Order: sequence, then structure tokens, then C-alpha cells
Amino acid sequence: MRKIKIEKNYLKHAEGSCMFSMGETKVLCVASVEERVPPFVEKKGENYGWVTAEYSMLPRSCNERSSRNKLSNGGRAQEISRLIGRCLRAAVDLSKLGKRTITVDCDVIRADGGTRTASINGGFIALAAALQNLKKRKLINKIPVRDYVGAVSVGLYGGGKKILDLSAKEDNNAELDMNVVMTSKGNFIEIQGTAEGAPFSKKEMDDLLKMAYQGIKIVTSAQKKALGGL
Amino acid sequence: MRKIKIEKNYLKHAEGSCMFSMGETKVLCVASVEERVPPFVEKKGENYGWVTAEYSMLPRSCNERSSRNKLSNGGRAQEISRLIGRCLRAAVDLSKLGKRTITVDCDVIRADGGTRTASINGGFIALAAALQNLKKRKLINKIPVRDYVGAVSVGLYGGGKKILDLSAKEDNNAELDMNVVMTSKGNFIEIQGTAEGAPFSKKEMDDLLKMAYQGIKIVTSAQKKALGGL
Amino acid sequence: MRKIKIEKNYLKHAEGSCMFSMGETKVLCVASVEERVPPFVEKKGENYGWVTAEYSMLPRSCNERSSRNKLSNGGRAQEISRLIGRCLRAAVDLSKLGKRTITVDCDVIRADGGTRTASINGGFIALAAALQNLKKRKLINKIPVRDYVGAVSVGLYGGGKKILDLSAKEDNNAELDMNVVMTSKGNFIEIQGTAEGAPFSKKEMDDLLKMAYQGIKIVTSAQKKALGGL
Amino acid sequence: MRKIKIEKNYLKHAEGSCMFSMGETKVLCVASVEERVPPFVEKKGENYGWVTAEYSMLPRSCNERSSRNKLSNGGRAQEISRLIGRCLRAAVDLSKLGKRTITVDCDVIRADGGTRTASINGGFIALAAALQNLKKRKLINKIPVRDYVGAVSVGLYGGGKKILDLSAKEDNNAELDMNVVMTSKGNFIEIQGTAEGAPFSKKEMDDLLKMAYQGIKIVTSAQKKALGGL
Amino acid sequence: MRKIKIEKNYLKHAEGSCMFSMGETKVLCVASVEERVPPFVEKKGENYGWVTAEYSMLPRSCNERSSRNKLSNGGRAQEISRLIGRCLRAAVDLSKLGKRTITVDCDVIRADGGTRTASINGGFIALAAALQNLKKRKLINKIPVRDYVGAVSVGLYGGGKKILDLSAKEDNNAELDMNVVMTSKGNFIEIQGTAEGAPFSKKEMDDLLKMAYQGIKIVTSAQKKALGGL
Amino acid sequence: MRKIKIEKNYLKHAEGSCMFSMGETKVLCVASVEERVPPFVEKKGENYGWVTAEYSMLPRSCNERSSRNKLSNGGRAQEISRLIGRCLRAAVDLSKLGKRTITVDCDVIRADGGTRTASINGGFIALAAALQNLKKRKLINKIPVRDYVGAVSVGLYGGGKKILDLSAKEDNNAELDMNVVMTSKGNFIEIQGTAEGAPFSKKEMDDLLKMAYQGIKIVTSAQKKALGGL
Repeated sequence: MRKIKIEKNYLKHAEGSCMFSMGETKVLCVASVEERVPPFVEKKGENYGWVTAEYSMLPRSCNERSSRNKLSNGGRAQEISRLIGRCLRAAVDLSKLGKRTITVDCDVIRADGGTRTASINGGFIALAAALQNLKKRKLINKIPVRDYVGAVSVGLYGGGKKILDLSAKEDNNAELDMNVVMTSKGNFIEIQGTAEGAPFSKKEMDDLLKMAYQGIKIVTSAQKKALGGL
Repeated sequence: MRKIKIEKNYLKHAEGSCMFSMGETKVLCVASVEERVPPFVEKKGENYGWVTAEYSMLPRSCNERSSRNKLSNGGRAQEISRLIGRCLRAAVDLSKLGKRTITVDCDVIRADGGTRTASINGGFIALAAALQNLKKRKLINKIPVRDYVGAVSVGLYGGGKKILDLSAKEDNNAELDMNVVMTSKGNFIEIQGTAEGAPFSKKEMDDLLKMAYQGIKIVTSAQKKALGGL
Repeated sequence: MRKIKIEKNYLKHAEGSCMFSMGETKVLCVASVEERVPPFVEKKGENYGWVTAEYSMLPRSCNERSSRNKLSNGGRAQEISRLIGRCLRAAVDLSKLGKRTITVDCDVIRADGGTRTASINGGFIALAAALQNLKKRKLINKIPVRDYVGAVSVGLYGGGKKILDLSAKEDNNAELDMNVVMTSKGNFIEIQGTAEGAPFSKKEMDDLLKMAYQGIKIVTSAQKKALGGL
Repeated sequence: MRKIKIEKNYLKHAEGSCMFSMGETKVLCVASVEERVPPFVEKKGENYGWVTAEYSMLPRSCNERSSRNKLSNGGRAQEISRLIGRCLRAAVDLSKLGKRTITVDCDVIRADGGTRTASINGGFIALAAALQNLKKRKLINKIPVRDYVGAVSVGLYGGGKKILDLSAKEDNNAELDMNVVMTSKGNFIEIQGTAEGAPFSKKEMDDLLKMAYQGIKIVTSAQKKALGGL
Repeated sequence: MRKIKIEKNYLKHAEGSCMFSMGETKVLCVASVEERVPPFVEKKGENYGWVTAEYSMLPRSCNERSSRNKLSNGGRAQEISRLIGRCLRAAVDLSKLGKRTITVDCDVIRADGGTRTASINGGFIALAAALQNLKKRKLINKIPVRDYVGAVSVGLYGGGKKILDLSAKEDNNAELDMNVVMTSKGNFIEIQGTAEGAPFSKKEMDDLLKMAYQGIKIVTSAQKKALGGL
Repeated sequence: MRKIKIEKNYLKHAEGSCMFSMGETKVLCVASVEERVPPFVEKKGENYGWVTAEYSMLPRSCNERSSRNKLSNGGRAQEISRLIGRCLRAAVDLSKLGKRTITVDCDVIRADGGTRTASINGGFIALAAALQNLKKRKLINKIPVRDYVGAVSVGLYGGGKKILDLSAKEDNNAELDMNVVMTSKGNFIEIQGTAEGAPFSKKEMDDLLKMAYQGIKIVTSAQKKALGGL
């Protein structure tokens, strides 16, 4: 597992933010609060809120420069944005958020593998910091977070070797790449595994999921420390 | 598990095709062969080919009409296209396909839940039929399919009840929605599970994966029958 | 004239639909009813409704696959959509439709010439079936159709030979391609003729229009039979 | 028939151009020659050329301003561009043009009905002037024009009254609007007629086509005068 | 300084318009009045209005044809539109315009250098003519123009030679290109200078600004004459 | 003048980079080198290179969040990109750069006024650092920089008070906003001044330009220090 570094409140003017690093991978996560909800949330009831996310890569975050156009099209960025949004919503009791939308922007400053898991990990901190901020300003009474949420990648690499938290080089050559999102208590929020070459067995998956939980416990305890409790 | 119906060679002029139905869900799957590969495949070697997929919904496939614009944007269609492509590539030994690209178009005629799994199931048939066609025309010696590939959704619904092959109504209210793609031999190609409400436990996932394999065996044996062996 | 085949109510959940075939050409026509009208119709009066159409080709409907992007851009699809919409509106007394919009989607499953005329022919059935549906549900008292509307292509081919209902091969080599839309009583709704090579004479046009009416009578009597009267 | 005014060579730096007015309607038509052809023309043979057209309206050409975006999207501009291109190609023997493309831009300065027919009429002059220019510069030996080509609208208005060359006001209220493109010798290149309300009879069409030819003879003789013969 | 030619009221149906020429450069400037303002202006107060501009080039305005797509994208057209809008707003007391928006469209018919300054010069006339029109129709009591506004380019060319009103050829080879927008009384509204090669000195700038004012006095006195006073 | 902070080599994998802050404004500037040039540069000669820039704002860089779509469209970002590119090109002797393109991405992390000048200042450092890198790797013999280039904004605020380096609050209420780009030796590369309300006099401009040079000297000496000489 690569080293985690969290610079909380990286942007002082935003409701919540952090620069989140896992090894060389570095994502700026910023939560913005707006006092309105989209129409389909409005129907759910008085006090319902919404959490959404946007993921984007800076042109030179990878080893070679990519055009902004290429990075924002093609579906990959939208697919990851949707994943982050789902995971952060699962962390929050939306029925207690009040009629507001929190948008979490995850902009990848440097990409060395695991940008989607880093975005979830840092995005959770930005979101929770924004909720702490709302509580401090007495806009909510209680922080409506169900549990800490962490994410990590696991995979098979180099002929079936099981590895945790893949770097870009490992990810590009992995035989199986699996992203796991869990709560600090060990339940699952999202699991996505893809065989890049040969299919994988149930036994291999089970071993990787155990390894993933070890990593996620490291993540959530770093989140707890950075947030000073919720 | 809803009833499977396969109309093979639905489009006679295409290299491979089928209309695939699972209950009310109906997807037209068409494989087109082109004698060229994208540049990044060309680098892999002489005989390498490529398989890709595109997923799209007709405007009135759902209960209410959606605009074509809305259906093709927003990332959902691209995300599913990428999933289908990955799964079909995993079914084929690309190094024995020859310098050609097979594009599998999955156009949803009627959507009642499970359109992505129906697209994988029908897409596999269209792809395999196109390969049978190439063999018949002596463009390949052997059909380079590793194993039959089937997909099914499983989930938790109505307070933790485990269900197989969710309809649209079930899917919209599911507590957990999981898409599982496996080979007929029981290995995994892709697994995607998302907690829509509370997180889920390892035990729940394991039970659902067993149920999924039961469904996938039904799918792959229907594929075998439709294709008459590979 | 190629053989007509009509599968009415192909999509049971839609207000009106049919799969319409003329020879190898096959178009899925689906009518969707929405209880609102665009602003410029609202101005016309209380009871005015609107009918509009959208035409699109599936990527492998032609002999070779085309990209979705290419098929939906370039103006051809929009030009045909507008033509179908005009012809279907001419078939209906919009002042008696009530404040609702009927959108007729014409998605070409297989294209072997005459996709625009097949779309009008099948689109009329989908539209009329939706109106039958509205009457059955007592939302309208009377089906506000003026007359059956049929379309056919005629042309000059192979050195001035007059032909009816051109296939793709004939269409691509025609010296004159003319699309004719008429009522069952023999009046004109739309006529579009284009000299692809040498200009054509009034005599040639007159002969072709007579031939077109023969074809349209076959179309409208097939429509009558499929709809069981209006 | 409204008054025709032709300002030939309105743009001195272009190969061919004219400002063409029919009553209040005013279109700037400019022909640009490029010494290359699109790939599908290249296949036809050594000496083949291509003619194409683009139609566009300035934002305040109509009585009320429209946004540039609205004017260039929606298919109408592309449909008319394609019509103009077809008609101008029919006027020229492309096999004698040489390996070059002539693009005729028709930008509507003022729109008071009949902008597409004015574009064809003025576009023909710009095209022919560009060909005169090529001959003068000895790039071609002979001007490869088959015949003068003129266009005019005819219609039914005010309860069946037959009228020639409709203004915007007449066009918006016409019961039948027909665009006719003919050679000076009286043959047809394109005919497009649309019943806006009730369908029209063969007799009505025949009368209108006679009237159209009267108008087109006026157009082509104005073209001849402006071009000083071909 | 090239010769100025002003054809006022070139489009009779528009509130204000002129064809403005400076030498070979020719811009059609048209002012359109709409009785509504954008939301951010609405906040400023009851009687506030808005002035905005759009700049566009016709495809063959330059020596070689450019595609419409290329001309409207890439930022250049938007940058110039914003410049024209700022300069015209500076000419008007928006708090006395009333709740209305005046859009000034500047469409370049022929581009031989100085299209942005010609657009400001002609745009001012179109705008002022529209205001005269509003006053005549008693929609405003007084024409809320602060002063005449003229624009001119100056530059260094051919090894430091100071020149006024650059043609396209001069502009393309200039060492310094500066656009200056001033009132008839000699104050500045906008100044934009760019060293194309070596940087320039304060002395060079001062000399060029003096020269610019000589040119602008010629422009504003031509505007006064065309408008017949304000 | 606000405090300048420069974090050179912020992204270690890029050829040149810095995080540049002026007060609260913070821009990540990254230079990427590619060993090819655009076609119009290729024509200039063997050894010619190219420098270009892209400017973009992160969604929450401002006090309120803006959508990514809104930030990248509308011309402002492109206009600033072009400005930065011109200024950086003026700093370099392109004829000695070799056949390579350096793209300088300026992504605004936090916007509190002066983002375009901060982008030029930080962009120069990223560019020069990339050139140092090329020299170290012996791809060029000499760093082809003509002089240090700095930018600063000056303006009139609060009733004619002259101020240097405007914050967002000052910028939004300025009567005159002028961006000045100069070399360390005191020559001009670009000057852009816009009267937001009343026009400004020559005297006011002259005073502001003197003040600007004071600021630019501070900028260029910070650049020298960060780069350790060129």
C-alpha cells in the first residue's frame, strides 16, 4: 500500500476540500454546497438532499500530455464520475441533508494508478469537511454520515501474484483489476472486477477482497485522523 | 429467471446477428466484420484482431419516450458499451482473430431491466455467428472462442430477498444490484455490484454469486443450442 | 412492387407501433403520445395537437456498417424526419387531436432502398393505431384522420426504363428518383423528384406519377387491412 | 414575378460571385475554386470535378433576429444546401471540369420568401462566372455547362389562387408550396411540392408547373444577360 | 488611411444597419432591438438596458475560402465579438436605454485587414441608427449616446515604419499591431497592442497613439455625417 | 502588489512546471514538450519550433462553483489561452527551439483576480524550466530565451485611484482594467486596457504603465531567483 498524504482545507474558500495523495497519485477534491436540489430529488420529500461528483484529469497528469478534449470525452471520465457519486451518496443519509446539493469535484493533478479510488477517498474527506462546515454554521444539527468510506484497488499481476493498490505500471499489465469500496465496518458499497486476460476464480476473488479490506482500514483510519472525528 | 428467446440471423446481410429476448427485454445484436484494426492493435502483432461493442437504446424502448440526445449522452450508454466490449474480448483469443475488427452493435428495442446483460448474452451469439461465418468462408481455420460467456443480474429486493434476473420494476427498487459475467465453466469475467441503500455483506454477495451462476448456466446452454456448437 | 409485411403492435407498451417491411427494407415505427404541445402549437387554440417524426438508421442497416455519428449528422436524417412529419401531419386534422403531441419514431432495421417511403407507410399505421388507442381510452371521440396516406418511390433506370419501388441497387443507379406521397383517394401530399443525370421531361413525370398511384393504392389497402378500418 | 436584380462580381477577389435579388430577397452567392476533389470523386476518373453548395442565413435576414446557432442547426440549412448542390451539379458536366471542387456559398442577406430559389438562381451565375474565369485563365478549354438552370416557387394561396414567386407572407399562408428547378429548354431538374393543408390534385400541379416555366424563362434570360453568354 | 464608405439603412427592415467599408474591407453591421434584457442586467434596475455584439466572417471573405466551422470556432470570433460589445457599451449610457437589448451583428463580407475596427465603426452607426429609430417611435426621449466612438489599427511595419489602418498584407507582416478605440473627444475606450516579433518601446507606442487619434477623428466625423447628428 | 510564491517542479514527471501564487490566486503551470510541430510551423524552416498555451479554470476556483461546460465555452478561456501563447512565444527565439512544440497548460486552482497575468508569470517559469531540461539533456545547446517576461494588471478603482495587481473584488469594480506584459528590460510585449465605465485619458494610462513596470520588475526578479539564471 502506497503512502497516503492528506492536505485538508487545501482551498480555504470552499466548503470542504483536500489534496489527497496515494504515492505519486494526487487528486484535488473539493466539495461545493448549493442550496437547491435537482427536480427528481425534490419529489422525495422536504428534507432530502443530493450528493454528486465530477472527475476530470488535467492534461499533463499522465506521463504524456493528452488533449483536454480527449480526456473529457469517450465516456471514461463520466463513468468514474458516476462511480464516485454513487459511493459518496452511499456514505450519507440523504434524507437528513436538507434541501441542498453537494458537488464533489475530483481533479487529478497527477495520475500514477488508482485515480478513481483516490478520488473516492479524498472525495469522502471533502464531503465530510463540508458537512462539518454546515454543522458549524448550524445549518444541520448532526453530520448525516453513516460510516467512513474507503476505496482501494487490488489485482492479479505477473502471473497470478496478488497485489494491493496498483500503480499505473502495475495496472496496465494486471491480469485482473478490481476496485473495492467498503465502509470502515467491512461492508461493501461497490465492487468492480474485470478479467483483462483469462477469467478468474471465486477463490482468487475471495483472497483479493480480504486484502482489499486491509487496505481500506488504513484509508478510513487516515480519514478519521484528518477529519478529527465526525 | 425470465424466458430466453433467440432469433439467430435476424439480419441476413450481416456477418452475425440475433434478436435476443429475456422476458420483455429485447435487444438486436449485430456483428460487423471489417478487415482492419485500430493503430494500438496493429502494434501487438501480425495476426491480432479487435472486438468492440456499441450499446444504444431506441427512444421508446422504455415505458416513456426519451429523446435520442438524452439517451446517447450522459455517459451511461458509453459505460455499458465499454462493459460489453470488455466481456466479448475476454471470450475471444484476439491473437488468433487475424487483422480484423468485429463491432457488435446492441440496440435495445424494448427495455424491461437487464439490457446490459441481455446485450452481452446476445452479443456473444452475434459475435460467435460472425466467427462461424469467417470459418465457413475459410478466412480463419478455427473459431478462436475460449468459452461461452453469459451474463445475468442478481440483487437484493424487498428487504433483503435475493432475486435473479431483475425486471425494470425490481431493478428500480433493488437494495443491491449486481451484474455478473461468467464463462460456462464457472469462472468470472466481470463483476459489478452496487449498494443502492445500505452496504451489503460478504455473505450476501456469496449467496448472490451462486444464484448468478445458476442463471448463467441457463444462458450459456441456450447459446450453445442457438449456435449449434463452436 | 415489393412485398409488404406489417407486424402491428410490435411493441406492446407503446401507444401505437408496427414493424413495416417492403421487400428487404424493414422499419420499426413507434408512436408515442405526450399530453403537451410545443409553444407554437399552444397559440393555435385549445384543442390543437401536434404530430412529429424522427428518422434514424441502425449502424448495420446498410450493407456496410456506418458509424452512429455519421448516420445522425450531415442533414440527411433530419431532412427525412421533416418529410415524414409533414406527411403524417397532412393525414390528421390537428385541430381535433387535443392538446397532445404524437412523436413517430422510424428506426431503420434494414435498408434496401425506399426507407423514407417505408417510414411514411409504417409511420401512418403507428400513428393511426395510437389514435385508435386514444379513442378506446375515450380521450378522443373520433379518430381525426382525413384519409389513408401512402408513399412510394418511382424512377427512371437503365436508360429510361420506368420502375416502381426502387431497391437500393436500383436507387443508386437511377437516372431519376421520385418520391410520391398520396392519399388513398389519389390526391398529392408531397412530391419530390430529382434528376440524377440528364433533366427529365413532363411526359416522363406524368407516366411515373400514374405508376406511383398504382403502388400507393396497394399500400393504403394494406394499411386498411392492418388497422381494421378507422 | 418579383423584380430580379443581379450585381455580378460583387466580390472581386472570388472566382465568381453575384448579389442576387428577387424583390426584397437578397442572397450573396460566391463560387470558390479549389484544385482538389473529395475521395469519392477521385475514384470516378482523371478529369472529374465536383460542385457543392452551402446555404446560410444572416441572423437578421428575417423580420426578427434569430440566433446563429438556431439558424445553422435543425437540418433546414443543410437540406437546402443539399438541394442547391444537386441542382448546380445537374447544370455542369462534371467529367469535363477537371480535378477541382467549386464550392458555392449562398448567404442570405435579406429573406422575404424564395431564398432557396434565389440561391439556385444566383448560385448558377456565380458558378458560371467562376467557369468563365477558369476558361479565361486557360485552365479549361470549354465551359462545361449543359444549360442555364433557374428555379422558382409556385403555390396555391388564399383559397386555391395560383401564384408565382411567393413572398414570405404568401409562403407562410400557402396551401401548397412548390419549388421547381428547370433548364432554359423546359426540362426538369428538381421538383418539390408540399401540401400544407388539404392535398392537391394532378390538375392543380399541372397548372402550377406551366406557370413555373414562365417564371423560369424570365430567370434564365436574366442569367444569360448577366453572364454575357457561355 | 483607406477610404471610408457608409451605406446607412442597408437593410430597411432592421432597426439600424449599415454596410461599412474601409478600403476593400466591408462589414454588414445590423442592430436588432428586443424588448427584454438578460437576468444579470435585470438586477441593475428598472431602466437598464444591454448592448451586445456578434462578429462573424463569411466563408469567402478572405482570399482563400475557410470552412464555416473553422471560422466560428477557435475563439477568435468570440474574442472579437466581446471586444465590439465592450466598445459599443462604453458608447451608451445603459441606465437610460430602457429594459431592452440591442444586438449588433457584424458580418464580414470582405476582409482586407481591420475587420474588427471596421466592425466597431460600422457597429456604432447601426447602434446609433437604432437609437434614432427608438426615439422617433417615442420609445426613448433622448438618445443615450455619450460620444461618437471610432476604432483604428496602427502598427510598425517594414523595419519600424509607423503605419495607420493596416491592410491584410501589412497586418500579416507587422512587427507591432495595435487596435485603438477612442471617443471623438480623444479619450480611450480600449487599447490592445501586441508585439509580433521584438518588444516595442514606450516612445513607439506614444507615436502610434497620436497617429491613431488622427485616424479616429476621420472615422467619427464620417459617422456624424452619416447619422446627421445625434 | 500581492505576495508571489513559486513552487518550481511541482510535477516531477513534466518537463517544466510550477505552482504560481499571487496572493490568493494560484495557477498550476505545466510545460509539455513534444517532438513535432504543426504544419504551418514546419514550413518556416528546419529548426523552427512552436510554443502554445491552454488556460482553464477548475470548477470551484471562484467563490461560487461554475459548471465545467460554462468555464470552457464562451470564448473567455480561449481568448486568455491565445494571449498567454502570444506572450510566451515573444519570450522565445522560435527559430532556435528545434522541431518541437512546447504546450504550457495553465490550470487555475484558485482565482482571486489576475489569473491571466499569474498564468503568464508562472507559464514563463514552466517554459524556461522545460528549456533548462532540454539543455541538460543536450537536445539544445543554448536556452533560446530573449528576456524574462512578466505580466501585471493595473487599474483605476474607487473614483480614479490607481492600483497595482487587482484582486477579484477590485477587478469587478474597476473603472479601468489594464493588463501589461513586459520584458525585464522594460519593453512592451502586450498591452490591453479597457474602460469599464467612462473613457480614460492618456495621462492616466501613462501613470498606470509606470506603476505596471514597477510590478513587473518584482515578477521578473522572482522568476530569475526561481530559475537560478538562464
